[in-house]
Amino acid sequence: MAEHAGTVPAPRAPFGTRLGNAMAERGPLCVGIDPHPALLRDWGLPDTADGLRTFSATVLAAVAPMAAAIKPQVALYERHGAAGFAVLEELLSDATAAGVLTIADAKRGDIGSTMAAYADAWLREGSPLAADAVTLSPYLGFESLRPALDLAAATGRGIFVLALTSNPEGASVQHVGGTDSVAGRIVRAAATENARAAPGVLGSVGLVVGATVGAALTELGLDLAAVRGPLLAPGLGAQGATAADLRRTFGGAYPQVLGTSSRGILAAGPTVSGVRAAARATLDSLEAAARLGAD
Amino acid sequence: MAEHAGTVPAPRAPFGTRLGNAMAERGPLCVGIDPHPALLRDWGLPDTADGLRTFSATVLAAVAPMAAAIKPQVALYERHGAAGFAVLEELLSDATAAGVLTIADAKRGDIGSTMAAYADAWLREGSPLAADAVTLSPYLGFESLRPALDLAAATGRGIFVLALTSNPEGASVQHVGGTDSVAGRIVRAAATENARAAPGVLGSVGLVVGATVGAALTELGLDLAAVRGPLLAPGLGAQGATAADLRRTFGGAYPQVLGTSSRGILAAGPTVSGVRAAARATLDSLEAAARLGAD
Repeated sequence: MAEHAGTVPAPRAPFGTRLGNAMAERGPLCVGIDPHPALLRDWGLPDTADGLRTFSATVLAAVAPMAAAIKPQVALYERHGAAGFAVLEELLSDATAAGVLTIADAKRGDIGSTMAAYADAWLREGSPLAADAVTLSPYLGFESLRPALDLAAATGRGIFVLALTSNPEGASVQHVGGTDSVAGRIVRAAATENARAAPGVLGSVGLVVGATVGAALTELGLDLAAVRGPLLAPGLGAQGATAADLRRTFGGAYPQVLGTSSRGILAAGPTVSGVRAAARATLDSLEAAARLGAD
Repeated sequence: MAEHAGTVPAPRAPFGTRLGNAMAERGPLCVGIDPHPALLRDWGLPDTADGLRTFSATVLAAVAPMAAAIKPQVALYERHGAAGFAVLEELLSDATAAGVLTIADAKRGDIGSTMAAYADAWLREGSPLAADAVTLSPYLGFESLRPALDLAAATGRGIFVLALTSNPEGASVQHVGGTDSVAGRIVRAAATENARAAPGVLGSVGLVVGATVGAALTELGLDLAAVRGPLLAPGLGAQGATAADLRRTFGGAYPQVLGTSSRGILAAGPTVSGVRAAARATLDSLEAAARLGAD
């Protein structure tokens, strides 16, 4: 059953299988945990490691019953240096104990033994920052991420590679190449990786595709259904996309979409009940959209 | 004199000016501090935060008298989570106290308020991880890095943006677009930024260009001299390039090149004198190459 045919069995089922099960049982919601300075202020918390700790624990307590995954934004912890990373270690460990999958939104990328060190940090068994999956950036080429692909397969973890984003500046890199665009190369490489996954289950190599990329998918000829991996789609809520937009944009690939909302849910704090109600409403909208036909 | 025309004066001279002065006074050597597990073992050190601390302090003591800059590889500290970042904080602070410029090799990149948080982490006055410069990755578009460009200008710090690398997989992203390649767009964007720098001094927006990129520079039509910013060129020594190769590859842009060697110097440890002699030999070769004509 394992994706990785090594001599040492993986310590857990493949990430894609585990995420697919969580999405089937709970629904396709990923809650971004982004302790921005402005949000901390709104919540009446100090912009310190202690503030991060209270914020993180509150969001986890609120969404643990219903989120398929949480996605801490590493940059917001990194702002506080070692003390911030200590809070992130606690959050990752507490989420795992609470039965919620963790996606470290780190967007790391490098080559060779340095890439292996990033893989080690986020995907190695026993690493203090080990998560169920990590986001990666492919400016150095999809294949430069190989050490992470290999370690994820060996430990039952996953990766999400940046492919196509909706920020206006993204096109200046991702759209270059026309019919053989940079984004298209990333999409096809992920599809090739997931061809090894068992039939009918999600692969463990996901992509990050902005919720508001709109027509770029068809303009660039990207076949996301063929990727067979999970699609992390940030941009739901505060960044302007509704679940129905997501359904229209992703079409036949919508069942692979993990709808990701951060500020739209976090702004409902600082109470556990406020955050929980906002997360529930977002999840309900994602599930309602799944029942719609694509336009 | 300041690059940034704000109402609050920058707390120090622009990074490009400071780096240019250091290169003129000491020579164009940047020593990479990469505590790889294999190097730690070779040095008789444990693969722990304590091992990192001894390794980092030894390299700093060895090269502080002659390096224009040190470049800690963040991935190697990140492997040890919060404890590793605590060691990195100490190294950055100790290097500044020793009068050596620091370049955090982090290759970060994101958009909007998340990019602002990465800028905050590495470039904000008083941040525990503040360095003189940080390396960034532009998969989300050069303009997505704007929060770091702005904060660096305001605090007299700098950035190095990944442009063209020598790993074989890099071409699948960086070379796409032919005469209007992805790498070319990054190079031209950096040149535009540095047009604001005072005449005759280095700008504060540098690029990462592999020491062994060879003919790709001319094939893609990249004009690095026009960038007017520093060029961080990893790959000297263990990765196969000599200083003479660097001189040939970079031609008229060689005066902007900060030759970067990691393993070639670090392998001469664990003694301070061993590391210092290897750094001195590398620096001598870089200075000898400056006196050669380009082929």
